[in-house]
Amino acid sequence: MYNEDGYELWLRYRRVDNPDRLAHYRHALSEVAIPGAGETNDIIRQELQHALPLLLDKEVAFTEQKPVANALVVGTVDQLKTLGLHISSEQQQKLDRKGYFIRSELAEAGQWVVIGGDGETAVLTATFHFLRLLQTHQDIANLDILSHPHIQHRILGHWDNLDGSIERGYAGQSLWHWAELPAIIDPRYHDYARACASVGLNGVCLNNVNAQAQSLSHEYLIKTAALADLFRPYGLRVYLSPLFSAPMQLGGLPTSDPREATVAQWWQDKVAEIYQLIPDFGGFQVKANSEGQPGPQDYGANHDDGANMLAEALALHGGNLLWRAFVYDVTVDSDRAKCANKEFEPLDGRFHSSVLVQAKNGPIDFQPREPFHPLFGRLEQTPLALELQITPEYLGQSRHLVYLADMWKEILDADTYAKGAGSTVAKIVEGSAFGHKISCILGVANVGSERNWCGHHFSQANWYAFGRLAWDFTLSAEAIADEWVRMTWGNDTAVVEPIKTMLHGSWPACVNYMTPLGLHHLMQEGHHYGPDPGHNSSGREDWNCVYFHKADVTGIGFDRSRRGSNAVSQYHSPLREQFDDVATCPEKYLLWFHHVPWNHPLLSGRTLWEEMQYLYNEGVTFVEIMADTWQSLQPHIDPQRHKHVHQRLAHQLENAREWCDVCLHYFGQFVG
Amino acid sequence: MYNEDGYELWLRYRRVDNPDRLAHYRHALSEVAIPGAGETNDIIRQELQHALPLLLDKEVAFTEQKPVANALVVGTVDQLKTLGLHISSEQQQKLDRKGYFIRSELAEAGQWVVIGGDGETAVLTATFHFLRLLQTHQDIANLDILSHPHIQHRILGHWDNLDGSIERGYAGQSLWHWAELPAIIDPRYHDYARACASVGLNGVCLNNVNAQAQSLSHEYLIKTAALADLFRPYGLRVYLSPLFSAPMQLGGLPTSDPREATVAQWWQDKVAEIYQLIPDFGGFQVKANSEGQPGPQDYGANHDDGANMLAEALALHGGNLLWRAFVYDVTVDSDRAKCANKEFEPLDGRFHSSVLVQAKNGPIDFQPREPFHPLFGRLEQTPLALELQITPEYLGQSRHLVYLADMWKEILDADTYAKGAGSTVAKIVEGSAFGHKISCILGVANVGSERNWCGHHFSQANWYAFGRLAWDFTLSAEAIADEWVRMTWGNDTAVVEPIKTMLHGSWPACVNYMTPLGLHHLMQEGHHYGPDPGHNSSGREDWNCVYFHKADVTGIGFDRSRRGSNAVSQYHSPLREQFDDVATCPEKYLLWFHHVPWNHPLLSGRTLWEEMQYLYNEGVTFVEIMADTWQSLQPHIDPQRHKHVHQRLAHQLENAREWCDVCLHYFGQFVG
Repeated sequence: MYNEDGYELWLRYRRVDNPDRLAHYRHALSEVAIPGAGETNDIIRQELQHALPLLLDKEVAFTEQKPVANALVVGTVDQLKTLGLHISSEQQQKLDRKGYFIRSELAEAGQWVVIGGDGETAVLTATFHFLRLLQTHQDIANLDILSHPHIQHRILGHWDNLDGSIERGYAGQSLWHWAELPAIIDPRYHDYARACASVGLNGVCLNNVNAQAQSLSHEYLIKTAALADLFRPYGLRVYLSPLFSAPMQLGGLPTSDPREATVAQWWQDKVAEIYQLIPDFGGFQVKANSEGQPGPQDYGANHDDGANMLAEALALHGGNLLWRAFVYDVTVDSDRAKCANKEFEPLDGRFHSSVLVQAKNGPIDFQPREPFHPLFGRLEQTPLALELQITPEYLGQSRHLVYLADMWKEILDADTYAKGAGSTVAKIVEGSAFGHKISCILGVANVGSERNWCGHHFSQANWYAFGRLAWDFTLSAEAIADEWVRMTWGNDTAVVEPIKTMLHGSWPACVNYMTPLGLHHLMQEGHHYGPDPGHNSSGREDWNCVYFHKADVTGIGFDRSRRGSNAVSQYHSPLREQFDDVATCPEKYLLWFHHVPWNHPLLSGRTLWEEMQYLYNEGVTFVEIMADTWQSLQPHIDPQRHKHVHQRLAHQLENAREWCDVCLHYFGQFVG
Repeated sequence: MYNEDGYELWLRYRRVDNPDRLAHYRHALSEVAIPGAGETNDIIRQELQHALPLLLDKEVAFTEQKPVANALVVGTVDQLKTLGLHISSEQQQKLDRKGYFIRSELAEAGQWVVIGGDGETAVLTATFHFLRLLQTHQDIANLDILSHPHIQHRILGHWDNLDGSIERGYAGQSLWHWAELPAIIDPRYHDYARACASVGLNGVCLNNVNAQAQSLSHEYLIKTAALADLFRPYGLRVYLSPLFSAPMQLGGLPTSDPREATVAQWWQDKVAEIYQLIPDFGGFQVKANSEGQPGPQDYGANHDDGANMLAEALALHGGNLLWRAFVYDVTVDSDRAKCANKEFEPLDGRFHSSVLVQAKNGPIDFQPREPFHPLFGRLEQTPLALELQITPEYLGQSRHLVYLADMWKEILDADTYAKGAGSTVAKIVEGSAFGHKISCILGVANVGSERNWCGHHFSQANWYAFGRLAWDFTLSAEAIADEWVRMTWGNDTAVVEPIKTMLHGSWPACVNYMTPLGLHHLMQEGHHYGPDPGHNSSGREDWNCVYFHKADVTGIGFDRSRRGSNAVSQYHSPLREQFDDVATCPEKYLLWFHHVPWNHPLLSGRTLWEEMQYLYNEGVTFVEIMADTWQSLQPHIDPQRHKHVHQRLAHQLENAREWCDVCLHYFGQFVG
C-alpha cells in the first residue's frame, strides 16, 4: 500500500474497487458535457478531468456539445438550456437560492446524469457532491438530489498574523505568504480553494481577529486582491479583520472615535479603496473592546456606534459586518458567562441592517462542552452569526483525535425556546426564527502549512464537517463521518465501521477525560494544553482554573442558579427553570450551573465524586479503545498515515491519563 | 510531465533515460550484497532498495552473502572481509579517516562494484555517491574512487526557536516539533537525515544561537535525545546552542560568572546529564556577548574564561565547543569590521584544546560579498571554524535565485598568506596550515517546513553545495552545480547547460544589483530585504546603511586603509599592502577598503560612478537573462516546479530593478 501524506484531504480519487459499481459508473459516464465557459467552468472541467479517469480507471471524453451517449451533463440552468435541456419553472422554483440539483434524465441518446445549479459556484459544489457519490460508491442509477445552503455566508476564519504565525494554530504556519504576494502565487492556494468549494464554503477571513493595522494598507490590499481574484471562481469571497484603531495607526488621525466624522470618512474611503480592488469583498470581522483590542468603548461610545459606522461604509458596496460578542469586561458582571448578554441585549434593535453580531457557541470560550450561548434567542432584531472553533485550542490541539461534528450538532440542535419549542440555535442562525435576511456561520480554521493541512489527519474531518454543516445543518454527524471516512480512508467496511466508532466516541471521551459534568477551563494558562486545575495565579480572576470549578470541601461547580450568579436567567423558560434546579439540570451541564456536594447522588446511582472518578476513567478507556482499534486497522491503512495517527493516539493516551490523574488527585483533596 | 513539488530534493531516482547506460547498469547490478547488520546498514539497504528499482526500472536481488553474479557489494572494510574480499593494508592506509572507496573488482562469479569505508556512516555517504553516479549517468565500468572528508565536523546550524519560528528562515517553520517530541516522530526527520548523509554532513545544531535556556531543561534534553537517536545511524551528531546565563535562568544560581566554582559545577552536571541521554553529543555552539546575548564579559571575565569553562565540561565526554567570534562592541573599535580581531587576537593560545573559535566568512555579516574574515590567518594556536550562511538573509531570501558555491569557493580559496603563499582559508579551516587536530565548518541552515524544504527550489542547490564543499572543498562550484542540476532537473543537455549558466551567473548578478564594487549592507533594517541606502535612523550607528557606504559629494566607500580605520592591517602581507593601495586593491573590494572619488578611473576605462551604473544594470540584465532562459526551458520542466521558479524570477527581476533604481537614484544625488 502506497504511503500517503494527507495532502489530498478528502479529495482522494482512488479507483472504485467495487466491481459492480465500477462497471455501472463506466457505463453511465462515457462522456461529460460542460457547455459553459469561463473560469469556474474551467475549474469544474479540470476537477472532473482529474477525478474521473482515476475513479473509473479509464479515459473519459469531454465535450461542450450535446452528448451522444450516456453522459454527465454539468452547468447552470441557463447553460443546460443551450443543450436543449428543459428545466420547468416549477423545477427552477424548487432550486432554492444558490442551490443545485443532481438528477438522472432519459435523453434521446442515452441516460444522463444532469448537474444543475443556481449559479456557477453552486454547480461547482454540486460537482464535488457528485464526485463524492462515486468516491463513496453510491448507486447513481436514479438520482434526484436537491440541495441548497441553509446559511448564506459560510466562512473559514483564519487567526493568521501577517508574519506567518497563527494564533491557536497547530498545523504549521499561515498558508498566506504575504511577503511573496501578489507576485508569487503558491499552487496550494488553489488546493485550499478546491477543498473549501468541495464542502460549500463561500467565504474566507484572511487575518487574525487580533488584528494588525497593516492588513488594511494599500500594499496589503493589493496582496489580498490577488488572493480574492484567485478565490473568486471557486465561489469564495474574502473578508478581513480590521483593527478598530486603524484610522490612527494607518491614517494618522488623532482619534478612532466612531462618532467623529473624520473617522467615519476615513473608513468610507478605506472601504471604497477595498472595493475598487475587490468588487465582491465580503466584509469585516471585528474584535473590539475584547481582550485588550481597541474599540468604540475607548471613546465612551458603544458597540452599536462602532459597528454601524463600519456597516454603513460596507453596505454601500454590498458588504456585511461581523461584530464579535466575545466580551467579558469584569466590571459588567463577575460571572464571565453573563457579560456578553448584559452588554448586547440592551443594544438589540440599534444595529444597522448589515450588521451580524457574532457569538461563539458557548458563553465562555470554546470549551470541550458548553451549553449554547444565551445570546441565541435573546437578540431578536439582530441577526446572530455563529462562531465555531475548528482549530482544537482546548481539545488537545493537533495531538488528540476529537471529532467535533457531534459537539456542533448538540449546539445547532439545542432548543432556545425563544419563540416556543423548536426555536433551535440552527434556526436562529439560519434567520428563520426571527425572519432575518442575512445569515452567517464562521469556523476558526484549523489549517496551516503542514503537509496534511491540519496537523492531525483526523483533524481534517472537522474542516470537512464544518463545511458540510454550514451548508446543511440538518445532516447528522454520523452521516458526515461516513462520507469523510470513505473518502479519506477507503470504503472497506473493515475500515469504515471501526473508524466511525472512533470518531463518534472521541468527543465524549475528550469531555470525560478533561472536563466532565459541566466542568470547564481546567487547562494550563496561555497555551491551554494539559490540566492545571489548581491554577490560581493569573492577573485576571477569570483566567484562573479555580474561578471556574470553585472546588472546596463542600463540593464543586460554579453556582449560576438564581441563588448564585443567576446566569440561568439569560435562558428562556423552560430552560431557565430546568437549568436552575439541580434536580432537573442535565448532568452534562451540572457543574456549569451548580455548586454540588461531593456526595450528591446522580442518575447512575453513584455520588458526584464517584461519577467524576468514573467518567475521567471512562474517557481514558475510550482512548485506549481508539488506540487498540487503530492498531487493528494497520493492514488496511498505508504505513505513513497509520504511523502518524498511531503515534498521536499513544500520546493522547498518555495525556488522557495525565488529565485523569491530575484532576482526580487535585479534586480528591477536597473530598472528605 | 508529472508535477513535482521538490520534496525529494536531489534524491530523485528517475529511470535512467540513456539506453546505453541503462543497459550497462542493469547488466552490472544484477545483485546487491550487504553483509553487515544494524541500523546504518538497514538505511543503506533501504536506500538502495528504493533507488535501484526506480533508476533501473527493474527489480534487483539483495543478499547478505557473497554474490553469484555481477553485483554491487557494500560494507565497511571488516564487513567486506566476511565476503572474502581482500583489502590490502596499503589500500586500508589509503582509506583516510572516515573515508570511502568505490571501485570495480573482478570476482570469481563476475564483475563487482565494491563500496567500502572506514565506518558504516562513511559507507552510507559512499552509497549516495554511487547512486549519484547513476543519477548523473556516469560510466561505472572502471571505478576507482577514493574520497575522505577534509573537515572533521560538518554541521548544519539551525537558527530555530523552540516555538517553531526560525530566525532568518525563509522556508516555513522549524522542522523540529518540540511540543510533540519525543512521543511523535515526524517521518520528515528521516528524510532530513537522509539528505544530510547524502552529502556527507555529520552534525546538526538544533537551536538558535540566540538561545533560550529551556533548551537545556531535562524535558527538552529528552526531546533532543529522541532526535539524536534517530540521527545517529545516519552519522549525524547533535549539537545545542546553550544560553550562557542558563545557570541563573535554569539552575537558580545567583550568577553565571564562569570563574565561580558553582557555575562551572552546574555546567559540568548539565553536560553530564546531556551525555547520559546522548552519549555521542557533539557539543555546544555559543553566541556570547554578541548582539545582547549574555556572556562572560557581563562579569568582567573574557571569552576564553567562558569558553574554557564549557569546553572542560564537554571534553570529559568527547564534545567540542564552538565559540562564535561574531562580536562588534562599539567601544572596541569604531570600525565594526575590526572588532572581532581586536577581541580575539590577544586571546590566541589561551583556549582549551577542545575549543574552536568560529568566524563568519567575512568581518561584517553574511553580505553578498565580503573579503575573508581577517581572523583566518591571525589565530595560530586556536583552531578556527568557518561559519557560512546557507539561508539567504541578505541575498533575496527565498525569492531570489542565487547559487552560493561560487561565493564560498572565493572565500575557501582566498590566500591569507599567514604562512606564506598558499595558506588559504580552506587550509586554515582544515587545520593543515597550523597543524590543528580538530576542524569544523558550519552552515546556517536554509531548510524549514515548506514542502520543498528551502522555499525556492534553487535554494536546495546551496544546501547541497554546502555539504559537498564541507566534505571536499577542492571540488569546483561548477562540478557541484553539474551534479545538482542533473539530479534535480534531469540529464538532458538542453536542461543542464542553461541551468548551469543561470547558477554560475546568479551570485555575481546579485552582487551587482545589490552591492557592487565592495559596497555592503545597503539593505533595509531588521528584515534585510530590499534596498535602503539612505537609512540613517538606527539606534546603533553601525546598523545604518550610511555608516557602511559613507557616500558624500567627494565620493563613496569606507576608508579602511592606513589613512582610515586601518582594518587592512589585520591582513597579512602582501594582502595588507594590496588592499591598502587604491591602485592595487581588487575592484571587487574597492569600496570596502577605500573612499573613492566619483570620477576615479577603473580598469574598464569607466569612472567609478559610470562603473556603478554599469554594474547595477548588468545585475538586472542577468536576471532578465535568467528569466528568459527559464521561460525557454518550459517544455523540459514539470509545470509545477517551472511555474514556481518562473514566478520567483519575475519577482526577482522587479526587485533587481528596484535595487538598481533606488541605489543609483540615491547615490546619484552626491555625484557632481
